[in-house]
Amino acid sequence: MDVRLLPEERVDDLMFNGLRIIQKEKGFCFGMDAVLLAGFVRAKNAGSILDLGTGTGVIALLLAGRYPTAKLTALEIQPEMAEMAERSVKMNDLTDRVSVVCGDLCKHKEILPPSQWDVVTCNPPYARMCEGTCSAREHINLSRHEAACTLEDVVAAGSYALNNGGRMALVIRSTRTTDLFCALRANRLEPKRARLVCSRIGARPKLMLIEAIKGGASSMEWEPPLIVYDEQGSYTPELLKIYHMDGTEKT
Amino acid sequence: MDVRLLPEERVDDLMFNGLRIIQKEKGFCFGMDAVLLAGFVRAKNAGSILDLGTGTGVIALLLAGRYPTAKLTALEIQPEMAEMAERSVKMNDLTDRVSVVCGDLCKHKEILPPSQWDVVTCNPPYARMCEGTCSAREHINLSRHEAACTLEDVVAAGSYALNNGGRMALVIRSTRTTDLFCALRANRLEPKRARLVCSRIGARPKLMLIEAIKGGASSMEWEPPLIVYDEQGSYTPELLKIYHMDGTEKT
Repeated sequence: MDVRLLPEERVDDLMFNGLRIIQKEKGFCFGMDAVLLAGFVRAKNAGSILDLGTGTGVIALLLAGRYPTAKLTALEIQPEMAEMAERSVKMNDLTDRVSVVCGDLCKHKEILPPSQWDVVTCNPPYARMCEGTCSAREHINLSRHEAACTLEDVVAAGSYALNNGGRMALVIRSTRTTDLFCALRANRLEPKRARLVCSRIGARPKLMLIEAIKGGASSMEWEPPLIVYDEQGSYTPELLKIYHMDGTEKT
Repeated sequence: MDVRLLPEERVDDLMFNGLRIIQKEKGFCFGMDAVLLAGFVRAKNAGSILDLGTGTGVIALLLAGRYPTAKLTALEIQPEMAEMAERSVKMNDLTDRVSVVCGDLCKHKEILPPSQWDVVTCNPPYARMCEGTCSAREHINLSRHEAACTLEDVVAAGSYALNNGGRMALVIRSTRTTDLFCALRANRLEPKRARLVCSRIGARPKLMLIEAIKGGASSMEWEPPLIVYDEQGSYTPELLKIYHMDGTEKT
């Protein structure tokens, strides 16, 4: 199904199951972090998945493609982004399985039912308000900085929305590791599986993927670090597998 | 200086600065984790270093070799181990800089002065009491399991003993990551630098090295994962550097 595009919008190929996505040319576009999170989360038997702060809807779309029987809810605070994500859902003929909800995850108790989802995902704003360069464009700012919600808000919303035994998966900048581990445990979400992402072998990990189980026991496993590029600057075989691409795309 | 050996004891070469150590042939011998921790900690300007649960004294001896002006205190709960560590200190002519104290770190307020050290190190018992196979020999059990103290006890003792701005460095089994991050922050020790240790590229990290600063701000860096063996099963150049060995010791 084709849908209308607003000025300055474009359609990008998600390179997976024929999925496509609408993005703003000058707005916040999805990055590798979203793709890595969609590849990291385990939702095989999940009937329902909630993506918090969905933005363009990229994670919800990728998970709808990866788990063909799951029902997805995609929550986004910015009405313009939520409306755009909804058009992407329509464009991909996924309206029967993906619902976009416009709302503030800080008000999760008012807008979401409790203990309703099997899996919650989030690619939260990376930086504290004091970190990095704040963008003049408010909608980029909300996606990158904790202007609308903190990491603690995200985790509290996830814990509230999950069934007991349900999983929350996040991707964060690795500088926030302690904040995330502490917020998860404080919200009865026990980290069970984590993975550092390095651009190359021998490079400092800048991203961390993590999966926590609501009410889980306190022991966790680290997966082998994920390496993005090989020595020639090409994507590693594992990264290509996550992207479901066969080519040898150069950096 | 040579010292007497008790039955079933042997002298091992620490392969660094001519240092040697006494160990029991059937007792708990130091492992790579201790050497990695001694190589990880940054104590260049530290006047005083405290090693908690020092066991054979290996970390204190290595740090005495690495930081020739630092004064070290090595705390050990088992009298027999503390006495053996003390003989290793004498054997290395380090009695003027390394003091072995026999005592229980859970009673740190009774046996140690507060806020006295620049650096605290610990290679704590890895497993919770319920984990792993408990050894019939009590002294091995105390070194491997949380029979005498928990990870939380270790961190509380470290925080108590450190100056503000001082550093605590630990090596732990990576399954305990969440326990450690949460215990550190709960004790005003903010993780600043961490490193996962993998046996080989592509292997799951089983150990984690971490350094926290008392009263530090909440942001941290991950160092590149430390790889122990190369594809041929030899130590990697970085591991050899940590061991200060030039050879190509096989696994």
